Amino acid sequence: MLFLVKHTVDFPHDLPESLRRELLARERESSQRAQQSGRIVGIWRVTGHFANVALYEVASNDELHEAISELPMFPYLRVEITPLSAHPNSIK
Amino acid sequence: MLFLVKHTVDFPHDLPESLRRELLARERESSQRAQQSGRIVGIWRVTGHFANVALYEVASNDELHEAISELPMFPYLRVEITPLSAHPNSIK
Amino acid sequence: MLFLVKHTVDFPHDLPESLRRELLARERESSQRAQQSGRIVGIWRVTGHFANVALYEVASNDELHEAISELPMFPYLRVEITPLSAHPNSIK
Amino acid sequence: MLFLVKHTVDFPHDLPESLRRELLARERESSQRAQQSGRIVGIWRVTGHFANVALYEVASNDELHEAISELPMFPYLRVEITPLSAHPNSIK
Amino acid sequence: MLFLVKHTVDFPHDLPESLRRELLARERESSQRAQQSGRIVGIWRVTGHFANVALYEVASNDELHEAISELPMFPYLRVEITPLSAHPNSIK
Amino acid sequence: MLFLVKHTVDFPHDLPESLRRELLARERESSQRAQQSGRIVGIWRVTGHFANVALYEVASNDELHEAISELPMFPYLRVEITPLSAHPNSIK
Amino acid sequence: MLFLVKHTVDFPHDLPESLRRELLARERESSQRAQQSGRIVGIWRVTGHFANVALYEVASNDELHEAISELPMFPYLRVEITPLSAHPNSIK
Amino acid sequence: MLFLVKHTVDFPHDLPESLRRELLARERESSQRAQQSGRIVGIWRVTGHFANVALYEVASNDELHEAISELPMFPYLRVEITPLSAHPNSIK
Amino acid sequence: MLFLVKHTVDFPHDLPESLRRELLARERESSQRAQQSGRIVGIWRVTGHFANVALYEVASNDELHEAISELPMFPYLRVEITPLSAHPNSIK
Amino acid sequence: MLFLVKHTVDFPHDLPESLRRELLARERESSQRAQQSGRIVGIWRVTGHFANVALYEVASNDELHEAISELPMFPYLRVEITPLSAHPNSIK
Repeated sequence: MLFLVKHTVDFPHDLPESLRRELLARERESSQRAQQSGRIVGIWRVTGHFANVALYEVASNDELHEAISELPMFPYLRVEITPLSAHPNSIK
Repeated sequence: MLFLVKHTVDFPHDLPESLRRELLARERESSQRAQQSGRIVGIWRVTGHFANVALYEVASNDELHEAISELPMFPYLRVEITPLSAHPNSIK
Repeated sequence: MLFLVKHTVDFPHDLPESLRRELLARERESSQRAQQSGRIVGIWRVTGHFANVALYEVASNDELHEAISELPMFPYLRVEITPLSAHPNSIK
Repeated sequence: MLFLVKHTVDFPHDLPESLRRELLARERESSQRAQQSGRIVGIWRVTGHFANVALYEVASNDELHEAISELPMFPYLRVEITPLSAHPNSIK
Repeated sequence: MLFLVKHTVDFPHDLPESLRRELLARERESSQRAQQSGRIVGIWRVTGHFANVALYEVASNDELHEAISELPMFPYLRVEITPLSAHPNSIK
Repeated sequence: MLFLVKHTVDFPHDLPESLRRELLARERESSQRAQQSGRIVGIWRVTGHFANVALYEVASNDELHEAISELPMFPYLRVEITPLSAHPNSIK
Repeated sequence: MLFLVKHTVDFPHDLPESLRRELLARERESSQRAQQSGRIVGIWRVTGHFANVALYEVASNDELHEAISELPMFPYLRVEITPLSAHPNSIK
Repeated sequence: MLFLVKHTVDFPHDLPESLRRELLARERESSQRAQQSGRIVGIWRVTGHFANVALYEVASNDELHEAISELPMFPYLRVEITPLSAHPNSIK
Repeated sequence: MLFLVKHTVDFPHDLPESLRRELLARERESSQRAQQSGRIVGIWRVTGHFANVALYEVASNDELHEAISELPMFPYLRVEITPLSAHPNSIK
Repeated sequence: MLFLVKHTVDFPHDLPESLRRELLARERESSQRAQQSGRIVGIWRVTGHFANVALYEVASNDELHEAISELPMFPYLRVEITPLSAHPNSIK
């Protein structure tokens, strides 16, 4: 089951640089694990923004919530979720 | 070069049923040609809406404009475009 | 898997009264079948509006799309969907 | 009398971790008491967000205000309220 | 139990003048009955707009829905509802 | 001359508790003086929010500005003003 | 007492040309009478739009409502009203 | 003096095809005259939309209003105007 | 050339009182100089808000930018600008 | 390939003055390098705002993302991007 998820990062201006780096490093690991396990099937940078869009393949809303809320940067994210269905014109 | 495009269909209430069917049939052909040629690399229905999101792979903004404005249903679409870039955490 | 769905009816002003009545009658049957089958587990009128909110229990986004797009009044509905997950404080 | 209430948590970034934990623990107790007394008849996590939707069953607007404003996390909540009425198509 | 209700009239441009007059006359009767019965405890024109705000005193959301949806002009109204509670500083 | 005014309180999260209490106490006095003098003819809590709506009866915009800007909590308020006129259907 | 009023004209696309001209001519007379009587103390075109902003000098909200709702083009106007007060820095 | 102007075309669905073509042809002539005279110093299609952005070089707001309101398609345009000034970092 | 400008003051909550007073005093001088020189031809308080609207008479966008960006309170202002043109119905 | 980009600066109120000056100086250098290399083909101040609009000429979305995210003031910018295409009426 696919969901399109946009994550926009909203770091507070006074976030210590060391914490910022740690969060980015942990987010990288977390994101790559999710890609390797097949939970995230595609991820792209939103051009010109500190934001991304990702396609999640999950079995349920609960799994999607777990995947997003476990992100190390979750407390600093604005999240928009679009549930997707099969399109009758898709050739896949 | 990738673009995420959301198309929301906004048919007028008094669109003749025959025209509606013709538009849907032509849109289907047009969408499938774009998928076969690799211009559209993914297309999904937005759950619960008469709308879809598609990933376009094009060489330029001009090619993207051509692809969208040639759609048979273009006069009835609201379109939102998000330019995408490579994400540093992507494993692809 | 639960989804909260708000349906707002937007009939065109010149919809013939007979069609209006037919749509409302068919919507009633359709809604009650969905309640009897357990797809809709609760439905309420939004006070003061020609709108409702319903809780859908479905197995997938595809089933949710089918349930909503089959509604007789679908062409006249504005739809807002909120995917729901289990709440850690829920006692159920 | 039913009300649909969405609560979105908006903690300041510099909220001390100990206060955060205390608030979550007190909120849990408060929420469960409201469920046990029948004031809250259903509560769900909004998937992917630090937010929830709940159905309140109360005798009056005053009781609803009391229920919401007594929440330990009330100073940090954005609240949206939708009054609900019986739906003529409901089979309950 | 008090509710603040804003009604904005949105007549279609081609509404026949005779129907317009009939609606306004029936609305006047309906509004005055609601005032005489105590359901509407105050009603004012929104300055410069074809709109009004009214204070409804009702026993329940269901009664409020009945009061609003029975208005002859209901199909042409945009409605915004604000549930009100006692204010601790009120001297009444 | 009547104005409907919505006041939404937006205290900064780090407002000292003593200042908060002082502001609420002074606001209470100020609000009650305005009610006793007839400047505020009704005031209600917006259910579920740290906000209120009030009906002001004043002789001019200048008097309304004075009444609002003198509120002790004015620096922390978001204010929305709706000028009201006599409604032709009012029986008062 | 001053009010800043923005009027945006929203003619339906199928308004007959003769009616359009008649409305514009009557609006011109009405606007100039209001300027001559001192009710409108300034009126300007919003650059690039079929819209204007005007400063009204009136004795009450009721007079303002009368002035606006009597405009021949009132059924086709979107209206935004900003009540104004004396500014302490004004040298007039 | 430069202004950035976005024009979005909003043709009614039932605009006759012959009128549509005539408007587009006249718009083309009008736009090219404005480019040749130097009033429009750049014009681009908004990718994927029936809209454009143009840079106008004019002597006054009045000249800008004349330029925009004379466009043959003006009755069908939504217009957004951004006044521009010299940028201190510009090397031109 | 006229521009309607709305300035909304957004002081941070922890602005020192002495700085606040200094800014208000300098703003007063600056505003009155602009009025005496004819750059600002009218200024009013927005009733009930810490905001004003002013009419600027300037020779160019560059002069308008200079006038606004020189205001002592500029770093704390939200600014909305409406370019104005002569209105054909104006009797001035 | 052209993109219209609006950058709005949103400095935190407590940004040290020395850092502010350093950021502005580095932004100036960065902006002028981008103009000299032809990546930015035009840049203007948005009149009355701490914001600018620029036209970027780049080979891809990735290059645009690099150009924007390398700006020294990027962490303090709100960015809006409009992809542009050739306009059929352009005489260039």
